[in-house]
Amino acid sequence: MRVSEIGEFGLIERIKRRLTPPGSDVIEGIGDDAAIIRTDSDEYLIATCDIQMEEVHFRRKFITPDQLGQRAVAVNISDVAAMGGIPTYLLVSLGLPAEIEVNYIDQLYCGMEREAKRSGAVIVGGNITRSPQLIIDIFLLGKVKHDLLITRSGAQQGDLLLVTGDLGKGAAGLRLLDSEAAERDEMIDAQLRTAHLTPIPRLPESRIIAKLQTATAMIDLSDGLASDLGHICRASGVGAVIWAESLPISTATRKAAILTGCDPLHLALYGGEDYELLFSVPPELVAPLQQAVIAETGTSVTVVGKIVSSTEGIKVAIANKFSPLLARGWDHLAQRERKN
Amino acid sequence: MRVSEIGEFGLIERIKRRLTPPGSDVIEGIGDDAAIIRTDSDEYLIATCDIQMEEVHFRRKFITPDQLGQRAVAVNISDVAAMGGIPTYLLVSLGLPAEIEVNYIDQLYCGMEREAKRSGAVIVGGNITRSPQLIIDIFLLGKVKHDLLITRSGAQQGDLLLVTGDLGKGAAGLRLLDSEAAERDEMIDAQLRTAHLTPIPRLPESRIIAKLQTATAMIDLSDGLASDLGHICRASGVGAVIWAESLPISTATRKAAILTGCDPLHLALYGGEDYELLFSVPPELVAPLQQAVIAETGTSVTVVGKIVSSTEGIKVAIANKFSPLLARGWDHLAQRERKN
Repeated sequence: MRVSEIGEFGLIERIKRRLTPPGSDVIEGIGDDAAIIRTDSDEYLIATCDIQMEEVHFRRKFITPDQLGQRAVAVNISDVAAMGGIPTYLLVSLGLPAEIEVNYIDQLYCGMEREAKRSGAVIVGGNITRSPQLIIDIFLLGKVKHDLLITRSGAQQGDLLLVTGDLGKGAAGLRLLDSEAAERDEMIDAQLRTAHLTPIPRLPESRIIAKLQTATAMIDLSDGLASDLGHICRASGVGAVIWAESLPISTATRKAAILTGCDPLHLALYGGEDYELLFSVPPELVAPLQQAVIAETGTSVTVVGKIVSSTEGIKVAIANKFSPLLARGWDHLAQRERKN
Repeated sequence: MRVSEIGEFGLIERIKRRLTPPGSDVIEGIGDDAAIIRTDSDEYLIATCDIQMEEVHFRRKFITPDQLGQRAVAVNISDVAAMGGIPTYLLVSLGLPAEIEVNYIDQLYCGMEREAKRSGAVIVGGNITRSPQLIIDIFLLGKVKHDLLITRSGAQQGDLLLVTGDLGKGAAGLRLLDSEAAERDEMIDAQLRTAHLTPIPRLPESRIIAKLQTATAMIDLSDGLASDLGHICRASGVGAVIWAESLPISTATRKAAILTGCDPLHLALYGGEDYELLFSVPPELVAPLQQAVIAETGTSVTVVGKIVSSTEGIKVAIANKFSPLLARGWDHLAQRERKN
């Protein structure tokens, strides 16, 4: 069997099953966004990695080196934010085609350092090698106080599901980059392309959510709401309902969907690369959390559904009609939409 | 200017110079084998990464997936050993061509886990993506007690230079793999190919050297003795003399050199990928160190030169004639031998 047939998540599950289970110091291991490790201090160590590979995750003609550097760091910071953590140190593993200009690397590091600094993280090392295509593989460390850690596994039946910001913008931006439509709106183009190319990880929002200690589970939306909600449900042993009409979708994303001939709801549910936070909170604790986040960061937090029993599965309600929510998302390994 | 013109070390120096210097918690940052970070505990955190990229670092027809997994982890453990540290946790970032068999990945992880376990390290996570060629990028964490840390920068004039094991075997093994010589010796082939494909990091030896607290500087030999000695000399502000006749070169390496038409001394000085330890020790403390290492590990430790004043440069003495030792080594980025 080829890896393209088993897909990314199938392969990760297989690897996890075959390896010796780690000791009790490993709080979260293979299969989560980041590893969580107990240390001597009162903070867990967080370790994560995420790669940007040319022609798989980006095309050089669409993204400046500064933007690429920012993006490569941002998607890793998003993984640390998803656990309620604070980024600390990062290593940069670069694969470089020989014809790349030194000036390109200068700008790449400029973007990486700016994004790292914004979250308080420091570049401390890495590795450089030759490669047929440009590769930026970032290894990010972070920390989180024991009682502020939020994993995927604590969602309880009755909790409401919330997301920061708005959904579908990452995928809408990608569609605009790929589209050759004659009719364009420069404002929308700029807004959504920026959202796609240089997502802003929700680190300040995550800090507030973590400190309130009311969120029961959290994940960042990298694969798409449907897919990432599936991770929370499986880890927590629960089901969920998403209320389609409640999903925050910006006017720009709706217009881009029309321009590129697709359904904005599809972008919001399955699009991926939004890097918003999806988390669960008991109903009575939702309002103070929403107020705290918007007051301190200006970011809206929207209730988009609720956690139900695992026997009810994962559904989306559109105009009071329930349909199973397929955990679709783009599977880079299988090179197809994931359906499971 | 292209990155192939500036080369790997030139680019690393440039990146280091352009980035904001890290704070005082970063004991060793960009440019060393591993980053050393102060934490709340009495141990420094070590973080390093090293990649194995198909067609750059290995060819799939020459190495089994199990060997490749072992090798990918081993070269990272060698970097932690070079600081006197203990490996703890690792993340595996994989780039996979779609046609790779799942069974290949099983065996790859088998090799990685076995090598990790041998040093007490645990695989705690990673990332998988599609890639045109097979890529294994390992991110390894480790730890070292404050007073056991050995960096590149403490070598003192008058110290003797020592290496573990023997030199040139990694390069000799590579030459045998590449060679199509009719005349072969199966024993030599097997011994040197194994040395090249699955180097054994000198972790037990490093632990003894670190605990004795007599080594003033240390590095692992990945780029070649000449190149890696250059790193110690630059970091310590000293010069060095290597005594060519003292270099430990095995009979197998000498025979392989003859078979493939090259000078064994060249392999020992410039070959690289030996993953032995090169370190400096005050003369009066050499004998007890050699005895301790061989008694506990069976590994020989050989005096190969001495540290001199920086004004004397870096030289090799062959039959009492001194020549400048060029810091040559294979520069993956420049795709040529490095000469500086």
